Amino acid sequence: MFNSISESDLEFFCSAIGTTYVITSEDQLLRCASDHTEDFVYKPEVVLQPANAKEISELLCYCNEQNIAVTPRGAGTGLSGGALPIFGGVCLDTKRLNQILTIDEQNFQVITEPGVITEELQQQVRLHGLMYPPDPASRGSCFIGGNIAENSGGPRAVKYGVVKDYVLNLEVVLPNGEIIWTGANVLKNATGYNLTQLIVGSEGTLGVVTKIVLRLIPAVQHDLLMLVPFRSAEAACEAVNAIMLNGIMPSALEFMERDAIVWAMDFVQHSAVPLASDIQAHLLVEVDGNDSELLYKEMEKISELLSRFDIGDILFADSHEQKQMLWNLRRKVGEAVKSNSVYKEEDTVVPRAALPQLLRAVKRIGAEYGFHSVCYGHAGDGNLHINIVKQNMSEEDWLGKLPLGIRKLFEEVVKLGGTISGEHGIGLVQKNYLDVVFSETQIRLMKEIKRVFDPNGILNPGKIFV
Amino acid sequence: MFNSISESDLEFFCSAIGTTYVITSEDQLLRCASDHTEDFVYKPEVVLQPANAKEISELLCYCNEQNIAVTPRGAGTGLSGGALPIFGGVCLDTKRLNQILTIDEQNFQVITEPGVITEELQQQVRLHGLMYPPDPASRGSCFIGGNIAENSGGPRAVKYGVVKDYVLNLEVVLPNGEIIWTGANVLKNATGYNLTQLIVGSEGTLGVVTKIVLRLIPAVQHDLLMLVPFRSAEAACEAVNAIMLNGIMPSALEFMERDAIVWAMDFVQHSAVPLASDIQAHLLVEVDGNDSELLYKEMEKISELLSRFDIGDILFADSHEQKQMLWNLRRKVGEAVKSNSVYKEEDTVVPRAALPQLLRAVKRIGAEYGFHSVCYGHAGDGNLHINIVKQNMSEEDWLGKLPLGIRKLFEEVVKLGGTISGEHGIGLVQKNYLDVVFSETQIRLMKEIKRVFDPNGILNPGKIFV
Repeated sequence: MFNSISESDLEFFCSAIGTTYVITSEDQLLRCASDHTEDFVYKPEVVLQPANAKEISELLCYCNEQNIAVTPRGAGTGLSGGALPIFGGVCLDTKRLNQILTIDEQNFQVITEPGVITEELQQQVRLHGLMYPPDPASRGSCFIGGNIAENSGGPRAVKYGVVKDYVLNLEVVLPNGEIIWTGANVLKNATGYNLTQLIVGSEGTLGVVTKIVLRLIPAVQHDLLMLVPFRSAEAACEAVNAIMLNGIMPSALEFMERDAIVWAMDFVQHSAVPLASDIQAHLLVEVDGNDSELLYKEMEKISELLSRFDIGDILFADSHEQKQMLWNLRRKVGEAVKSNSVYKEEDTVVPRAALPQLLRAVKRIGAEYGFHSVCYGHAGDGNLHINIVKQNMSEEDWLGKLPLGIRKLFEEVVKLGGTISGEHGIGLVQKNYLDVVFSETQIRLMKEIKRVFDPNGILNPGKIFV
Repeated sequence: MFNSISESDLEFFCSAIGTTYVITSEDQLLRCASDHTEDFVYKPEVVLQPANAKEISELLCYCNEQNIAVTPRGAGTGLSGGALPIFGGVCLDTKRLNQILTIDEQNFQVITEPGVITEELQQQVRLHGLMYPPDPASRGSCFIGGNIAENSGGPRAVKYGVVKDYVLNLEVVLPNGEIIWTGANVLKNATGYNLTQLIVGSEGTLGVVTKIVLRLIPAVQHDLLMLVPFRSAEAACEAVNAIMLNGIMPSALEFMERDAIVWAMDFVQHSAVPLASDIQAHLLVEVDGNDSELLYKEMEKISELLSRFDIGDILFADSHEQKQMLWNLRRKVGEAVKSNSVYKEEDTVVPRAALPQLLRAVKRIGAEYGFHSVCYGHAGDGNLHINIVKQNMSEEDWLGKLPLGIRKLFEEVVKLGGTISGEHGIGLVQKNYLDVVFSETQIRLMKEIKRVFDPNGILNPGKIFV
C-alpha cells in the first residue's frame, strides 16, 4: 500500500533536515511506536525531527510524491492511538517546534508552536496575567499541538469550553507541502468556510499544524475545591444536574466511582482521603472567580444542595497542598487503572442530564458481556470515561465478545443523544464503531474532505476511518 | 449556466409541496429579490415555501437533477447579499419552518427550526430561565437560520461569543436531497471532522439547515448601561483596550462615531442624548451578571478608567426605558445611514488593540479615494462596521474608484492581523476581495469543499467565490 523507506529516502531526509534529526536507532523507534493507548506497539521505520514549517513542507512534499506514510507525533499522550504509525513509514516528531513565539498582552492572544507542553504554556501566559483554560489530565506532559489534533477537553471545560473554543488561527502544512493559515487572529470571523475548526480535532489527518494562535482570558484569581462522597453513584450523577439547574457554573465538576479513587490512592501512595465502606462515588467540585467572598457563598449553596442527597462528610480543601493532592488523585486515575490491568478506555459523552442513565447502561451491559468497568470523568459536561479492565477476562472474550459489548454501549450512548468521543478522538481504537454514530452519507462527506486535503492518503493513514 | 424554470418544473413543485406554496406573484418575487444589502434587486423565477426537511429534500433533489439554481432565504436581513438569487431560479423560502421544537431545561439546550425570529427564540428560552446570548442588531426581524448561515455576532459577542459558539448540532439537507445531522447534542465532541462548524457561516452554500440544536446558559439577572462621550474617536478606541486590560469583561463595548449617533437620533426622532459640539465618538458600555452590587463596582471602575481619557459627561441609563432608548439608537445606526444615502457597509475585524490604527487607516484611505465613512461597531472584539456613504460621489467614482479604495482598506486590515468580515459574511458583495485575505491554496481548498457538498453547484451559486 505504502512504500517502505529506502536508502535514498533516508538520504533525502538527511539533506532536508540534517543527519542528526533523521533517527533510526531502536530506542527512538520504540519510543515512537506507542502512545498512552492500551498496549499497542507499531514501530515507524524512521523518526524525523524537523525544526520548522519549511522543513516539514519539504518532507511532506517528498513523502507525498514517494507514497510514504507519515504519522505526526506530539508528546505521545493520546488515548485513541492517533500517533501510532500503523503502516510504519515516517514518524513526524514535532518536539523541536517547541517555542512560544508571542504572548500578546494587548489582545489576550498567544502564538505558539505545537511542541510546547500545555502546562508550560499555561504557566507562561499566567506570568502575563492571562489564562489558557483547557487542561487535559496529561497537561504536565502533553503538547498543545496534540490538544489541537484531538480537540482536548479537561475538567475546566464545563465552565470554559474545550480547545476548539480557544483556537483562532492555525498555520498548517498540507500533505502536498503547501503552507496555509486557516483563519485570522481575530475573535469574530465570517470570511469563508471555517478551515480552523475543520483542522481542530482532525487528528493529524488533514495537515500538520506548525503554528497556533490561541485566544486567552484574564487570569482568574481564586478557586475553592471540595470532595463530596456519595452513597449512590447514580445520585452523584443526579447531583451534578442539580447544581447546574441552580444557576451555578462550577469550574470543575468531576465524577469518580469508588474504584477510581481507591486505585488512584494506591497508585499515588496517598491515603489522605477518608473512605467509608458505604461510599460508592465522589464528586470533586471547584468554583473559581475573582471575588473570593462570592466563591464562599457559591460553595455554601452547593453544599446545601448536595446535602439533600445521601452523602458522607464533605472534604473542603483548606490549603494549596490539599487542593494539589485532590487534583493529583483525580488526574492519576487513568494511569492508576492502566497500572492495575490491561484495559480499554471509552470516552462517551451524553447530554448532562442523561448521565445517570448512561452509568446504569454501562453496568447493565457490563454484566451482560462480562466486563468490569471503572467510571470517572467530566460529569459537568456529560463526558464519562469508562475504563474497561481486563482482569480475569479470557483473551477470547476480550478480543471477541467485548467489542460487541462496546458496540452495544455506543448504541445506547447514541440513543441518549450522545456520541462516542468527547475529548480523546476516534484515532485507531474507535474507528470500527464510527458507523454506530454516523450515517453512510456523513462518513462519505468526511472521507471526501480528507481527500480534498490529502488526495494520496499519506498523512496519518488508518485513523478515524476504517 | 442554469436552466430556467419551466411549466413542468412548476408542476413538480406543486406536487411536492402544494400549489399554495409555489409562488410566482410579482409582489412575492420582488419581496425575495432583495435583502438589506445596499440596493440590489435580483428576482427569482419562483418562490418555494416548503414545510419541512422532507419537502426541502424533494425540492433540492429535483433541482439538482434539473440544474436549477436554488437560493435559500431566511428573513432577508443579510448585509452581504447571501439571500439574493442572482441567477434567478428558485428562492427557497424557509419561513414555514418556524417552530421552536424543544426547550430542554435539564440540559440547557433548545432545538429549533431555522425560520424562528432570533428575538422570539431569546424570549421563549428566557421564560425557562435560560439565555441565548448572540443578538445581532436585526434580532427583532432576522431568522435564527440566517444567523447560522452567516455566523452572526452582535454586541454581546465580546463577552459571550458568536453564533458558532452556541451551535451543537444541525440537521442539514444536502443539495442532492440527502438529510444529515452534523454532530450530536453534546457539549464536547471529538468524533470525526467538525461538520457542524463547517456549516455554520457557510452562507447557505453547502446545505439547507432545517433543525438547529443550540446550547444555552442560565439567564443573567442584571445589567447596567452607560454612554460615554469622547472628544477623540481614536481615544475611544484606545479606551476599549484599557477596560479589557483591567480584567473587566463588559457584556457590550460599542463604538459609534459622531455621525453614527447623529444620524441614528434623526432617524428615530429622539434627541434625548445631549451631544456637545466637540464630541467625536461614543462608547456604549454594558456590564451584566447576577450580583448587582458587583456590577455597580465594575461600572465605577470602568468610569474611573475612562475618566483618564478626554471625555464628556457620562450618561448612566437609570431606567429600563433609558436602556431601551440607548440600545435602540445603537441598533438603528445601520438603517439610519441607509435612509440617508446610498451606501456600502464593510464589516472589518482586527485584533482589538489595532482598532485605533484601523480607524486612522479608514479615514486616510477615505481622503485618498474621496469617500466619506461613518464608523461604528463592536469595538470590544475589534469589529468595526464602516459605512461608506455615496452622498456627492459621482457614479463613475462610486463604481470605479471606490472598489480600489476598499481593496486598499482590506489590505490594511490584513496587515493588522484582521480579516474582511467579522459577522456579515462574504456573500455577493465581498467575494471580489477574497483574494486579499486568502491565498490561492486556501481558496482552492474551500472550493473543493464546496464541490464535496454540492458537486453541481446549484446551491446559492455566485456567493463567497468569484
